[in-house]
Amino acid sequence: MLSASYVGNRTFDVGETDAARPGRGQVQIAVAYAGICGTDLHIFHGDMDARVRAPAVIGHEMSGTVAALGDGVSGWSVGDPVTVMPLEWDDTCPACRAGHRHICQNLVFVGIDSPGALQGRWNVRADLLVPLPEGLSLQHAALVEPVAVAVHDVRRSGLAAGDRTVVLGGGPIGVLIAVVAREAGAEVLLAEPDERRRATAAELGFRTADPGDLVELVQEWTGGAGADVAFEVSGAAPAVLAATDVVRVRGTVVVVAIHPQPRPMNLQRVFWRELTILGARVYERADFERAVELLAAGVVPADAVITTVVPLTEVADAFATLESGRAMKILVDCGGAP
Amino acid sequence: MLSASYVGNRTFDVGETDAARPGRGQVQIAVAYAGICGTDLHIFHGDMDARVRAPAVIGHEMSGTVAALGDGVSGWSVGDPVTVMPLEWDDTCPACRAGHRHICQNLVFVGIDSPGALQGRWNVRADLLVPLPEGLSLQHAALVEPVAVAVHDVRRSGLAAGDRTVVLGGGPIGVLIAVVAREAGAEVLLAEPDERRRATAAELGFRTADPGDLVELVQEWTGGAGADVAFEVSGAAPAVLAATDVVRVRGTVVVVAIHPQPRPMNLQRVFWRELTILGARVYERADFERAVELLAAGVVPADAVITTVVPLTEVADAFATLESGRAMKILVDCGGAP
Repeated sequence: MLSASYVGNRTFDVGETDAARPGRGQVQIAVAYAGICGTDLHIFHGDMDARVRAPAVIGHEMSGTVAALGDGVSGWSVGDPVTVMPLEWDDTCPACRAGHRHICQNLVFVGIDSPGALQGRWNVRADLLVPLPEGLSLQHAALVEPVAVAVHDVRRSGLAAGDRTVVLGGGPIGVLIAVVAREAGAEVLLAEPDERRRATAAELGFRTADPGDLVELVQEWTGGAGADVAFEVSGAAPAVLAATDVVRVRGTVVVVAIHPQPRPMNLQRVFWRELTILGARVYERADFERAVELLAAGVVPADAVITTVVPLTEVADAFATLESGRAMKILVDCGGAP
Repeated sequence: MLSASYVGNRTFDVGETDAARPGRGQVQIAVAYAGICGTDLHIFHGDMDARVRAPAVIGHEMSGTVAALGDGVSGWSVGDPVTVMPLEWDDTCPACRAGHRHICQNLVFVGIDSPGALQGRWNVRADLLVPLPEGLSLQHAALVEPVAVAVHDVRRSGLAAGDRTVVLGGGPIGVLIAVVAREAGAEVLLAEPDERRRATAAELGFRTADPGDLVELVQEWTGGAGADVAFEVSGAAPAVLAATDVVRVRGTVVVVAIHPQPRPMNLQRVFWRELTILGARVYERADFERAVELLAAGVVPADAVITTVVPLTEVADAFATLESGRAMKILVDCGGAP
């Protein structure tokens, strides 16, 4: 099989290796497609070298089919279409004991902290598999993981039908949050500085704004009240200040993006309007299953989100293209598609 | 009657004036005691000169007795002991219409935006009066307003019995939050850099910490989990970073203090632990009534909070003393006590 190993210094080694047999309790997956996400880019840049020990096969957004079963695995058959919820919790830390296993204090994120999907055959703990329904293409199914992020973020926001919602950032997660929020009945305005990304969002039927015009636009849109919910998905410092400016009294800001350093936040506004700021990270099993449903129902405009599909041999170019901002989501064909 | 007018430039004019008759719908209160709060200090410093037009009689923490009734007022008798909930909402803005009248977008804060209690006779809209029970001294009753702030903050936090709670800042509001949280069944640790204030908190039975030792202490105290709730009451930038460091996965930070400029906040931690950051401002009627109950029941250590009582003629000295950090709460005797 082919596999791509991150070897440090913005470099992947792509080559043929022998597929390992699945261990006890594992399933071997023939990986069809793997999506590249922002975290993968951080790894490629070397920002996570302390956590990701090279050489490392990364990748955690994927789809495929069951290729083989390890000892002790039941309930799956060779050929079953699947995706993977890439979280392994320890079930013993205070967060797990309080019922928040998805953000276990010792969480193993499969594809970051352990081997991932950028390979033709991938052995994964059977309990991480999520079945895919007939009729959902494996390309679209490679979006289940980022859609699950959006489902989790929207659920955590407490957003209700009719709520006016601002999404700050028009990358893949921003667009998917907008889609999931709209499906939940919200009216959505997406703010994004990049004109092409704004155009993509507009084509999908969303109001859009340049961040420079955002506060005034939201004031007009909401009759001076402010939006009910804002999602900070950009990771940019000015968006953190804008987020508190655009929400109403007792409104909610959901922090979805990664902010590697402390950001100035308008706590006077948080106090004055009694705002709620919520962190939202990864997903729970119910979010993953809802994401499968939304993709299978055609709610997610998967073809608009997937810019292109490249072979595993071109994985480094794909990272470079993403870095330049010229793509939304790139899928890597890992060679395991039937 | 005597009255104290803020005339700008850290100066009060104290002198005899004639008491005005209460207007229609107003009650004239013989003001017994007025407490000086942090906002009053900001006014004294000139920080709020754009909002508070000198000359201005300020003061919004108080107790007194009914002295006279204006036309159209019923339900009150001369001599009734009362305090005032100093909020006037417009009932028409989006926040009011959504049921959040206490943080009306056009809120008039009586004693800041309109004349306050630092005078012997004070005319106030009758519906702002809150009755005081027999047996609650008028000195203790002057603490109803700050206790109501603490009640509101604790209620908004969603704190449950048994929760481990960190209060950052050991001034009057910090101590009152600690008291109200303890009454709600929480275990409380109060962090405060000033040794005398720590000693006061310790005498009241609270765990205390120097902010420098806080994170490690909370780790030990909570077995590595983190606190359930933290209240940021200090207004200091380092406390904002500490607040997110000390709370558990899915923990809550309540922003109580005023932060005049944006503060660096650890949004990575907010995201990673799925924290909730809540703003909490002033109070609702139920908070005020609960504050009266807590004071009447002796739950609030009022004598430990009230450092001294000074006559209205010494109001400027009282502000200077507070500024130096040598006092918790100073009450001003406004001359209206029976």
